[in-house]
Amino acid sequence: MKTIDFWFSIGSTYTYLSVMRLSDVATRYDLSIRWRPFSVRAIMQEAGYTPFVGKPTKMAYMWRDIERRAARYDLAPKLPAPYPLEQFDRANRVAILAAQEGWCENYVRATYRYWFEHGLEAGNDANLEAALSDCEQSADRVLESAGAEACQAAYEAATGTAKSLGIFGSPSFIVNGSELFWGDDRLEDAIDWINSQPA
Amino acid sequence: MKTIDFWFSIGSTYTYLSVMRLSDVATRYDLSIRWRPFSVRAIMQEAGYTPFVGKPTKMAYMWRDIERRAARYDLAPKLPAPYPLEQFDRANRVAILAAQEGWCENYVRATYRYWFEHGLEAGNDANLEAALSDCEQSADRVLESAGAEACQAAYEAATGTAKSLGIFGSPSFIVNGSELFWGDDRLEDAIDWINSQPA
Repeated sequence: MKTIDFWFSIGSTYTYLSVMRLSDVATRYDLSIRWRPFSVRAIMQEAGYTPFVGKPTKMAYMWRDIERRAARYDLAPKLPAPYPLEQFDRANRVAILAAQEGWCENYVRATYRYWFEHGLEAGNDANLEAALSDCEQSADRVLESAGAEACQAAYEAATGTAKSLGIFGSPSFIVNGSELFWGDDRLEDAIDWINSQPA
Repeated sequence: MKTIDFWFSIGSTYTYLSVMRLSDVATRYDLSIRWRPFSVRAIMQEAGYTPFVGKPTKMAYMWRDIERRAARYDLAPKLPAPYPLEQFDRANRVAILAAQEGWCENYVRATYRYWFEHGLEAGNDANLEAALSDCEQSADRVLESAGAEACQAAYEAATGTAKSLGIFGSPSFIVNGSELFWGDDRLEDAIDWINSQPA
């Protein structure tokens, strides 16, 4: 089965669209998806780049564009969602742990659903309690492990790997090991690319 | 016939894709396109935003993404094209004049073709001579008119109108007077939007 590496940061708004539709897309095209959390914020800060904060016109457009795109995918978010996140890194460290333990997709879908559809900020206590409960995980255990040094080190290593692949935004898709597609709106391009390569 | 306002700045790289395919798209969907030049640079400078300059990773991705997208549209640019343009405003003031006189689309397609397919920077003498010759326009006359105060005033007014519409990037598409779609990759969304509205 062909594989797409799905590189994402919880905290990215457009990533909501990919998180919610990836499972259907993978089934439809018979693809395997590897969920790869990293810190897009660390990469952006190093590059001196902020996509929306301090840019009200672009931010207003972004919410409208997400609203229209969500409708195309039969999603019904309540917009604008709280943004930017206060606990960006905490949300993503939990994803790192979840990826190690095999419940990453469930967690990321749940945390985005509570964030975008119920107004609970990802990474905050109320969101994490609800999302971890949906994943049948103990919040106490998860938050302790996600706060530990080993998890932070894995998060930084993942971010370093993302950077070495040329990733600068979320969501990003890597196919055939190095071909990079940035943005939910490039997911179909990435799939076309996979299917155009020899097996 | 339904109309799309196509707001663009010569100097934007992704705008190449729209400029080269808009005529075919308009025919296919029975649409009328209004070509609306403005200064995206003035709007970006005011907002403190630079999309690619000083961001080498993002710039490298941009060229690769344009290369892949161009192939989907059967275009064969020589990339990277010279970027950023030295004579950004000059290229766009000629477009303002051309829009007033009815040869804007021909000029913009020609100047992008010389820029992206022959390596001649838009706005520079060699590009303008070739593009204006293709449009059967006198370079002397056009450059004198495009350099005059009236043309500069029209350029600034167009930029003010773009800003008032919430435009912050090129290419942008406005449908139904106010619904904004940003990016060559949203042209099909804009067309779907038009076709979903009552006639």
